[in-house]
Amino acid sequence: MYIGIDVGGTNLVAGIVTADGVLLKKAQRKCGSERGAEAVMADILGVAVDVCQKAGISAGEIEQIGLGIPGAVDDKNGKVIFSPNIPLSGVALSEIVRSRWGDTAHGGQGRDVAVHLINDADAAAFGEFSAGSAKGYRNMMLITLGTGLGGGIVIDGKVFSGANNIGAEIGHLVIEHGGRPCNCGRLGCWEKYAAASGLISLAQEQMARDKNSALWRLAPNPADVEGQMVFMAAAEGDKSAQDVIALYIDYLANGISSIINIFQPEVICLGGGVSNAGDALLMPLREIVAKDTFRHPEKNTEIRIASLGNDAGIIGAALAKT
Amino acid sequence: MYIGIDVGGTNLVAGIVTADGVLLKKAQRKCGSERGAEAVMADILGVAVDVCQKAGISAGEIEQIGLGIPGAVDDKNGKVIFSPNIPLSGVALSEIVRSRWGDTAHGGQGRDVAVHLINDADAAAFGEFSAGSAKGYRNMMLITLGTGLGGGIVIDGKVFSGANNIGAEIGHLVIEHGGRPCNCGRLGCWEKYAAASGLISLAQEQMARDKNSALWRLAPNPADVEGQMVFMAAAEGDKSAQDVIALYIDYLANGISSIINIFQPEVICLGGGVSNAGDALLMPLREIVAKDTFRHPEKNTEIRIASLGNDAGIIGAALAKT
Repeated sequence: MYIGIDVGGTNLVAGIVTADGVLLKKAQRKCGSERGAEAVMADILGVAVDVCQKAGISAGEIEQIGLGIPGAVDDKNGKVIFSPNIPLSGVALSEIVRSRWGDTAHGGQGRDVAVHLINDADAAAFGEFSAGSAKGYRNMMLITLGTGLGGGIVIDGKVFSGANNIGAEIGHLVIEHGGRPCNCGRLGCWEKYAAASGLISLAQEQMARDKNSALWRLAPNPADVEGQMVFMAAAEGDKSAQDVIALYIDYLANGISSIINIFQPEVICLGGGVSNAGDALLMPLREIVAKDTFRHPEKNTEIRIASLGNDAGIIGAALAKT
Repeated sequence: MYIGIDVGGTNLVAGIVTADGVLLKKAQRKCGSERGAEAVMADILGVAVDVCQKAGISAGEIEQIGLGIPGAVDDKNGKVIFSPNIPLSGVALSEIVRSRWGDTAHGGQGRDVAVHLINDADAAAFGEFSAGSAKGYRNMMLITLGTGLGGGIVIDGKVFSGANNIGAEIGHLVIEHGGRPCNCGRLGCWEKYAAASGLISLAQEQMARDKNSALWRLAPNPADVEGQMVFMAAAEGDKSAQDVIALYIDYLANGISSIINIFQPEVICLGGGVSNAGDALLMPLREIVAKDTFRHPEKNTEIRIASLGNDAGIIGAALAKT
């Protein structure tokens, strides 16, 4: 049995996962990252104990604990490189968790557990790869369309995050030279157009242009507009919303096509809130991408909706390997 | 001893290469690709025999022949997938060359030679990786700034070209949504801005705006302007040419930064005509890239000028492995 823990800035979610990637039970704790590294580590151990108890599994049955970290990690050396939102930068986390877990299991006689660190976005990709919508493939990417645009890359069965473990920042591919300012400091990053927040920006711009759009009914205050409202209004036949969706999908397709021209993965899985739109997103997207990418006579990238939702990160962390 | 052959649409260049990547001797033949597959294959065998004779090496001393192909190859199965400019699409080239080489060496008693196929841009990258400016690293990219913008990627010591062998088309990353039309059918591909031809386009646009630019002296007919002229005029202090160079380097940095955010290679080598500009290119480029990429506390991508020129493709093909 494996434990995967999604270590977030506000919540820790742990899961018991089988070797096949089946998530049996989950437990959650508030993280309280403002209390410092010691408290966060105590919570990590705590939530791991919680989930074992909840599942009726003894600590000694756990072979591996994987930690999905919102930041850069060096799993080989068991260290967090940096983690802006949790106070673990520079901490030799693997050894600390390993030794404390030993103390926990069987009153200090615990089984020697393997501990792995993995970036949280990479963990989600590895989860979809191991047990989700990319199961059975060797080369895949997960693209998460949430507030930001994140992603993870698996090449030949292994997570790829660059030579220094901080790569795979696919949201920070510039698709519009001199375009919208991004939090990363650049102009025109893909994330500013193709994340859920990009869709919302496009909708708000359209609402300013078209006072008759059905979007005004769904969100009388444009600040409240959500991605799914735009898909709803478009499905109802609102031309204005349909134009927004078409432009959004064009931006999304743009980055995906560039990525395919470079990576040519077997499958790309789309996750995050926007992916709930399903076929309304997928069908037009696939059409543009097929036109805009270099094509192999037989083997071309499939685009699918991710299947594991937030559990992907727990499952991927649980099964992480160096 | 190894033979590497750069198989081009008009010329075949073969080289004898040592296991350390030292190119000992070269031979060349016109390719005559319009004569069909049989003639091209005869020329491939012919130039391989030529180079052995020139180097005073017997065919039996050759352990491996690597063919750099302008197209997509499936080295595992020894086949050319497609090659638009030479008539070898679909040909099981490795086995044909292997068996005919056996007939050539020692009157049919030839040593069983290994034959590998590799895309020509990948071969150039693998050459720089094995024996050129990226020697000693495990993760690198070669970006060739010629008429087009090509590239090759090495991850953990192996050429990466996607799951279907047609990836690494880094020139066809869109950096300007809806921008300049590219031969590939898309709008705004990086190649249209950052290849030598992109630099020339920018210079021509500037000449149209500024009739006093020193560029008019170097190229009275704007159709004759070359990349190096722009660097020359800029070095002489011509403000107009300096503006062109600054904008060109900004576009070049833009794509390189996106690539680093995803790949975080240890080193990027710049080849092709534009790279002859050396420090005038490198210094401002490094400055923008350092500002526009996610940074690791210690390990960040170095940017260098490639060192092997056209020999890179021969050396990389010679040393190619599956």
